[in-house]
Formats: sequence, structure tokens, C-alpha cells
Amino acid sequence: MAKLVAVEPGFYRIPLPEVLTDSMHGEMRAFELNTVRVRDAEGAEGVGYTFTVGRNGAAVDAVLRREIAELAEGEDADAIERLWHKIWWATHYGGRGGPTVLALSAFDIALWDLKAKRAGLPLWKLLGGFDPKVPVYAGGIDLDLPLDALLRQTDGNLAKGFRAIKMKVGRKHLHEDVERVAAMREHLGRGFPLMADANMKWSIDEAIRAARALQPYGLVWLEEPTIPDDPAGHARILREGGVPIAAGENLRTIWEFRLYIGADALSFPEPDVTNCGGVTPFMKVAHLAEAFNLPVTSHGAHDITVHLLAACPNRSYLEAHGFGLDRYIADPLAIRDGFALAPDRPGHGIQFDWDGLDRIRG
Amino acid sequence: MAKLVAVEPGFYRIPLPEVLTDSMHGEMRAFELNTVRVRDAEGAEGVGYTFTVGRNGAAVDAVLRREIAELAEGEDADAIERLWHKIWWATHYGGRGGPTVLALSAFDIALWDLKAKRAGLPLWKLLGGFDPKVPVYAGGIDLDLPLDALLRQTDGNLAKGFRAIKMKVGRKHLHEDVERVAAMREHLGRGFPLMADANMKWSIDEAIRAARALQPYGLVWLEEPTIPDDPAGHARILREGGVPIAAGENLRTIWEFRLYIGADALSFPEPDVTNCGGVTPFMKVAHLAEAFNLPVTSHGAHDITVHLLAACPNRSYLEAHGFGLDRYIADPLAIRDGFALAPDRPGHGIQFDWDGLDRIRG
Ligand SMILES: [Mg+2]
Ligand SMILES: [Mg+2]
Repeated sequence: MAKLVAVEPGFYRIPLPEVLTDSMHGEMRAFELNTVRVRDAEGAEGVGYTFTVGRNGAAVDAVLRREIAELAEGEDADAIERLWHKIWWATHYGGRGGPTVLALSAFDIALWDLKAKRAGLPLWKLLGGFDPKVPVYAGGIDLDLPLDALLRQTDGNLAKGFRAIKMKVGRKHLHEDVERVAAMREHLGRGFPLMADANMKWSIDEAIRAARALQPYGLVWLEEPTIPDDPAGHARILREGGVPIAAGENLRTIWEFRLYIGADALSFPEPDVTNCGGVTPFMKVAHLAEAFNLPVTSHGAHDITVHLLAACPNRSYLEAHGFGLDRYIADPLAIRDGFALAPDRPGHGIQFDWDGLDRIRG
Repeated sequence: MAKLVAVEPGFYRIPLPEVLTDSMHGEMRAFELNTVRVRDAEGAEGVGYTFTVGRNGAAVDAVLRREIAELAEGEDADAIERLWHKIWWATHYGGRGGPTVLALSAFDIALWDLKAKRAGLPLWKLLGGFDPKVPVYAGGIDLDLPLDALLRQTDGNLAKGFRAIKMKVGRKHLHEDVERVAAMREHLGRGFPLMADANMKWSIDEAIRAARALQPYGLVWLEEPTIPDDPAGHARILREGGVPIAAGENLRTIWEFRLYIGADALSFPEPDVTNCGGVTPFMKVAHLAEAFNLPVTSHGAHDITVHLLAACPNRSYLEAHGFGLDRYIADPLAIRDGFALAPDRPGHGIQFDWDGLDRIRG
């Protein structure tokens, strides 16, 4: 038994190099980072993290510090399903969703990291092992960029090794979105994988109208056309809009994914390992998608998620989306010719610069 | 404009007079209470609260203190929809659900209290006004009580003025539940309103089997037969079990209620004003139920909810469920001959004993 003797949360505030905007989150000036280090009786360590776009990090920290640490200490770190279930139900009232799930996600990631390290395996092999070479796309946050700056940013992404790119849509007028997507398609050429993300901006009928207007530009997918609370609405957008639909960064349980997948409401389920409950539920969503003959993509935390998609035969693109975290990680994930390679180090292989993080405590 | 100048959270731990148990929450030894006091530029005050069965209260406090206070101060307290919408979206990432919604619920309640006080109206009249006399039931937490103690507790509830009672089910063997419900029916007589609450214990097929076995005892409703993440499962239980179904204390948005109500999965929607987002979403759920030709019942916080049900023509029973909070409230809600009367004082009329609460800070 790998007895858990320590669960140590950390809470940090990472200023963004530039202010980011999308259609619903407004201006984002700093991301919050919540880390958790777990240690077993033999001194082995695992590390997990989650992040927010600027709010709720203090609540995530409170859940890790006050609830999860107490519930987990003394338990067997290898019995992850049992621990996950224990914490889910102990915190269920007032906890099913929101900061509690982000905290649980970070903790679950740390447990998987620990287990893989103890086994001497990279996480992607521990989870099954399919192919460490994962296609990746650049997730741009560029809604407010003028067109020429958008194209310059795109050239920068090509130079960094990306061979697939996602842009934001959801500007005030649909014709602006159409012009920008058309310009990107022209710039990138036919066949280049291009996605667009509306960040929940539209009503159902606005989304259907937008999807139809964007049909000629061959998007791989249109992301989060509307709020994450409406499976039937997504099914209509997919059916009537005629463009594949991705969503999932704002779904918090396997059951929410089931509502969407079971209603034929999604083409690309897109869980985020840092907010869907961790590695444990992420893999269940990936397998649920496989059983429904769907690919699985991802949101956020590409350094961890590369392992998860490398374990899945139905894996689609990995999102690479930096918010300055790479500055605090040794040897961050490299992109080469459109692919990221899941590291061969034991665990997920992320090593934080704890001294650097100490200077930006939340 | 009623300019908000102060938003003051409080966090307390209320020891329970006796240890409570139900089928999924295990032993509960203390409830957590999160309060919030809002004050406008003219010195008028409103008070709201939320509670947990023992965990996540520190996270609720963090959201009130770090996020909501900053987002709300300086805003117009009368523009509740605008403020609610602002906070919902500012905290959406990592906030859609869980402690963030509990915090928002407490804040929204405080805003409605303030508005009603400023208007010189009891909340139930401000919200529309239907009938201040609301039928009420005793929500027993009695799963582990031996049968004779259950019947004694029931006699105590009758003596307190209750004329409708809810008991727990979900014991290890279904035949135990059936025997206990049969004994309660025998004890209370035909026609006495009796409900049973399974607290999410069963699988779909276990729930259908239980509902069928309980059919002879004429339950008003069977509550939370399974996890709150499965509208289709609830629809099957209702259709195939042949007993009316209540649920909602673990649903956190109007959209979750819509999934259930739209799927014919609920007979008695049961929102909790302290965790569905506050008075604002509670009333929307009540109206949604009305449009679907359904009654609305409630969970928790009977001292506030009596006003909400007193404003609804489709109101069913109010749950009265003390967890020791009445000890810290002046003039708590009285039950007489099966009814509670919404107070005629301006606002919701709850006055906390702040000095007493100070001694049990969380
Ligand atoms: Mg997105
Ligand atoms: Mg209940």
C-alpha cells in the first residue's frame, strides 16, 4: 500500500504577458494556478494542478486545504477510484461542480503521477499506451486582434511548429467573423486544419446561422457555440448548422458528457483534465466517446493531456494553450511539425520551479 | 439607485444536537453556515445565508470574500438580474456549480431581503403574493433509527404541529424500507401525507423495484431515488415505478431543472434557495414548473422559502428541516396545524443572533 502521508496545496497568480479577451470571459489579466503535491510513506511524490482564468482559485485552495487533505491522508494512494469516490461523496453537497471539482481534478492528477512514478512508467504507458506522437493545435485567444495582427500571430504559430490552429469567433457582427475566417483560410491554404471557438456567445439560432455562414471554409470544428447547459440546443446546432461541434471545457462530470454524447450533440468531446475531475474521469469520457464512434480532443493543460491522448486510439488534436505556465516548468512540452511527443520520463514528467512560484503566491 | 457599499461574509460551524445519517452523506456532526450582509449607501441592510452538511463552507466563504464582494461593491443593489448575471459570468470558469453557486445564492437572498426592506414589504408580497399560509412537512433524518424511535420521533412531529412527514429510505435491504413505510402508514392512518427520501442511493432498476414495492402505501412522493446526474433515469423511475418523484436539492441551475422537467422526469421539482443560485433562480424554477403544470416544493431554509412558496400559485409543501439554526434566529418560523405563515415583517424577516454566531466561527 502506498500510504498517503502528505497533501500539500499551493495557490499562485500568474500574470499574463498580454491581456487576453474572448467573447464571454471579458478581459483576462492573470490566471490562477492551484497545485497539489502528494507524498507517500516511502517518500515518493506526485504533483497535480488546475487553473482558472482569474477567479475561484481561493475557493479551490480552500477545498484542497480543508477538505481533500483531511479526507485523503492515511489512505492508499494507489486505490484512486476508491479515493475519488470517497471525496466525491464527502464533498457532494455544495461540491458537485465548481471549485470542488477543480480541486479534485488537481488531486487526481497528482495521484496518477505518483502511481506512474512508482511503476517507473510514463503516464501515457501506464494508462494503456497507444502512440506518444499526438497531433496538436495552437489555441489562439485573438478575438480583439485586428486582422493583420491575427495573421501575424498565425505566422508566429506556424514558425513554432504548429500545423493546426484555432481562432476565436463571436464578434459583434457575424460578417466580421466570416471575413476573419475567410482571411485565415486564404492565408493558410485549403486543407490546413482550422478551428473556430465562440466561447458560448450565441443563442441556438445565431449559432446555426453562423455555422451555415462558415460552412464554405471547411472548419475542423466550431467550438462552444452556446452555453454548456443545453444538450438539445447543441444537437440542433450540429444537425442544422452542418459544421462539426466541439465542447466540453465547461462540463464537469462524466454524466454531463453522457448527456451530450447520448443526444448526438457533439462531434468532438473536449474534456479538460484540470476541471472534469482529473485523469480518472477524462479517460472515462475518452472511452465513452470511443464507444460512440467519436474522436476525443482536449482543453488546457497540454503537458498532462498529451499523455492521456497518447493513450487513446480515438484521440484527435491536443490543444496547446499557454498562459505563461511554461515559465515555471522545466523542459516544457515541445511542438515539432504539428506534433507533441508524450515524454518518456516516469509520471507526467512536469517539474515545477517551486522557488519561482513562491514569488507569485495567490 | 441603492448603491452597495458593503458585502460582509460570515462563516460558522453549527454542531448538531445529535449525529444525523442518511443513505449517502454518512454521518453528519455539524452543519456549516455561510452568511452575507449587504449594506447600501443609505444604511439599509439585507441578509442572506447558505449552508452545507459539513464540507465546502470554507470554499463558499472564499468565493464571497474574494470574488463576489469585489464584483458587487459599488453596484446598484436593486438591479439584481444584472448583478446576478455579472457574477455568474465573472466566476463561470471553475464556478458553474459547487461552492460558487452556494455563495451566489446567499448573496442573491441578501439582495432580495434588502430590496423588500427598502420597499417596506414582506418578501412574499414583493415577489407577487399568493397566500402566506403554506402547507409544511417535517423532514426527518431517521434512516438509522430503530422503528420504535422512528414512531416516537413522528409523534413528536405531530405534537409540534406537523400534518405531513417525510421519512428516509435506502436501508440495506428493500424489505426493511417497506416494513418501515408500512409501519408509518399504519401509525399515521390513511390519507396522512407521507413522503420518503432515498438520498440518491439506488440504481435505476433498484429504484423502480422500490417504487413498485412502496406503491401500496400511497406516498405523496419518493425523493431523490438516484444520482442527480441522470434525467433519463429519473423519467424511467417515474414512468415504470408508478410513484410521484421529487428531486432538486442537488441541482444547481435553472438549466438542470429544465433538463428534468422537459424530460417528464420529475413530479415535484424541489429547488433549494440556498444552493440553486438564490431567490432569482428559485422563482424561475417555480414558474417553469407552473408552465409545465407541476407543483413546486422546496428543500432547506424554510424561513426564507416560506416567502417564495407563499408567492407561487403552484406551491406544494414547504420542507421544515432544522439543523440547529433556529437557536441563532430571533422569532423562528412557527408551525401550526400543518401550516407555516410567511411573516409580515419587511424582507424575509430573519434576524440572526450575531453575538451567538461569533462564538461558533468556522
Ligand atoms: Mg474553448
Ligand atoms: Mg432530500
